[in-house]
Amino acid sequence: MKIGVLGPKGSYSEKAAKQWIMEQETKNIVSLEYYDDILDTISAIVDKTVDIGVVPIENSIEGSVGITLDMLLGNDLNIIGEIVVPIEHCLLSRGELPDIRVILSHPQALAQCRQFIRTHFKNAEIRTTGSTSYAAKLANEFKEMAAIASRESAQVYGLEILIPNIQDRKENHTRFIVTEAYDGVIADTRTKSPLPEDDFKTSIIVYLKKDRPGALYELIGEFAKRGINLIRIESRPSKRELGDYLFYIDFAGHIGDAIIKDALDNITLNVGMLKMLGSYPACNIEYKNSNDE
Amino acid sequence: MKIGVLGPKGSYSEKAAKQWIMEQETKNIVSLEYYDDILDTISAIVDKTVDIGVVPIENSIEGSVGITLDMLLGNDLNIIGEIVVPIEHCLLSRGELPDIRVILSHPQALAQCRQFIRTHFKNAEIRTTGSTSYAAKLANEFKEMAAIASRESAQVYGLEILIPNIQDRKENHTRFIVTEAYDGVIADTRTKSPLPEDDFKTSIIVYLKKDRPGALYELIGEFAKRGINLIRIESRPSKRELGDYLFYIDFAGHIGDAIIKDALDNITLNVGMLKMLGSYPACNIEYKNSNDE
Repeated sequence: MKIGVLGPKGSYSEKAAKQWIMEQETKNIVSLEYYDDILDTISAIVDKTVDIGVVPIENSIEGSVGITLDMLLGNDLNIIGEIVVPIEHCLLSRGELPDIRVILSHPQALAQCRQFIRTHFKNAEIRTTGSTSYAAKLANEFKEMAAIASRESAQVYGLEILIPNIQDRKENHTRFIVTEAYDGVIADTRTKSPLPEDDFKTSIIVYLKKDRPGALYELIGEFAKRGINLIRIESRPSKRELGDYLFYIDFAGHIGDAIIKDALDNITLNVGMLKMLGSYPACNIEYKNSNDE
Repeated sequence: MKIGVLGPKGSYSEKAAKQWIMEQETKNIVSLEYYDDILDTISAIVDKTVDIGVVPIENSIEGSVGITLDMLLGNDLNIIGEIVVPIEHCLLSRGELPDIRVILSHPQALAQCRQFIRTHFKNAEIRTTGSTSYAAKLANEFKEMAAIASRESAQVYGLEILIPNIQDRKENHTRFIVTEAYDGVIADTRTKSPLPEDDFKTSIIVYLKKDRPGALYELIGEFAKRGINLIRIESRPSKRELGDYLFYIDFAGHIGDAIIKDALDNITLNVGMLKMLGSYPACNIEYKNSNDE
């Protein structure tokens, strides 16, 4: 089985993928394929160059990863799992602190360390990269460069950890989704899993009918009146015009449950568009940062 | 009157501020003060170095400006107005297209031009700046640099427009808010304005009580059952832990309206926190891009 992740080696996506493989207790031979950015990773899933892929979708400090949400809308994908990874960003370099003139990292990591950069490197040049690990790889080239990346990246690319734990909040987790190409059938994640029904979650994208006041209230009511727990609701521009949104909704339950199917059938009747992204085992998050591997 | 905007000259914030000044038909002498980034601009408003400030909050392609939402939560600010500005990003440089090795811009602009960069400059170095106009200013230094910024920035910094209109969607607008420091009294925007009541909107931030299923449904119900039109609902991480959110809500009406006051009084009783951001004239958006100044 080939799993596509954000590369190169040392990325948080790789860590998430390894965590997922371990949890699956699979007997398949698994190989990781590394891609330059989220877009390339998802393209590889869609065209089946890889069997599944692992990409970040949400961070506890900086929120949604916009490009991942957009790709879920624009491509035929099934979410079959999720992984939550504790994030500890470190400042990595070949040089010493006074040498640093350039800070490199992925835009999400830069945003998670906004205060740190502002306080210590207000005049540094900020470069964005497709992943944190690619930033670490580049930082190996010049002593005046520092990457914001994982502790593991320091080892992989021969860098020193100049300052550990530099994100603006110590509490920092990223949620990753595991996706595969969608062939017209929602992946059967339940019969493969020993989990009880209530440990599943379902993700959908909804576009409400326009000029229909109360439409969002009705939509959420379909869950509330059935006692279905809403886990997350996130708006995202439709990109058609300002003020026009899609809603990304995660809720507890599996599409195979009668009550969930009933809710979705009713919602479909009253919205402009409903896209089913999948039902999958919900990750039991451990809310603590850990430095050990 | 001093107005703080994202600088240097040529920024979209400056354009928004000028548009706002024109609409106000003020007789005061107005001066613009330019700041390095959104954080500095908002700090200047809070400590009253400027009377008001203009910062971007939402874009039709890339969505919310996270730092602005975070600053509205963490500071005492009153929103007193909004402006919608058509955005036409251009690729600006002193050099020719084959010279370009480095692309500079604000992270939001880079995200709005993601496909363009990917198609034409996949191997370019990407640097982020505090504003698009600062990118243009920097790009003037070396021929191998190009900025993604406004048409006006080209004039201000002596750059050529190598490619106009490079954002991923032609339809591109950014909404800016006008804010002032909050001194314990919500700004009276209505008596100063000749607008009818229904041309106002109100912005609040809500933190729901935890472990209370249906809390969001109840919250939205307070608006729905009073026929109050919900304009926007946006979730943002509380930054305490993954899966814990604040809701930023815009709705039609003015805090001075009895029905709005009644709704907010009821909401306050049932939520963990409600922060009032202000009631202000809603911008009548013209959904067309215009190149003329």
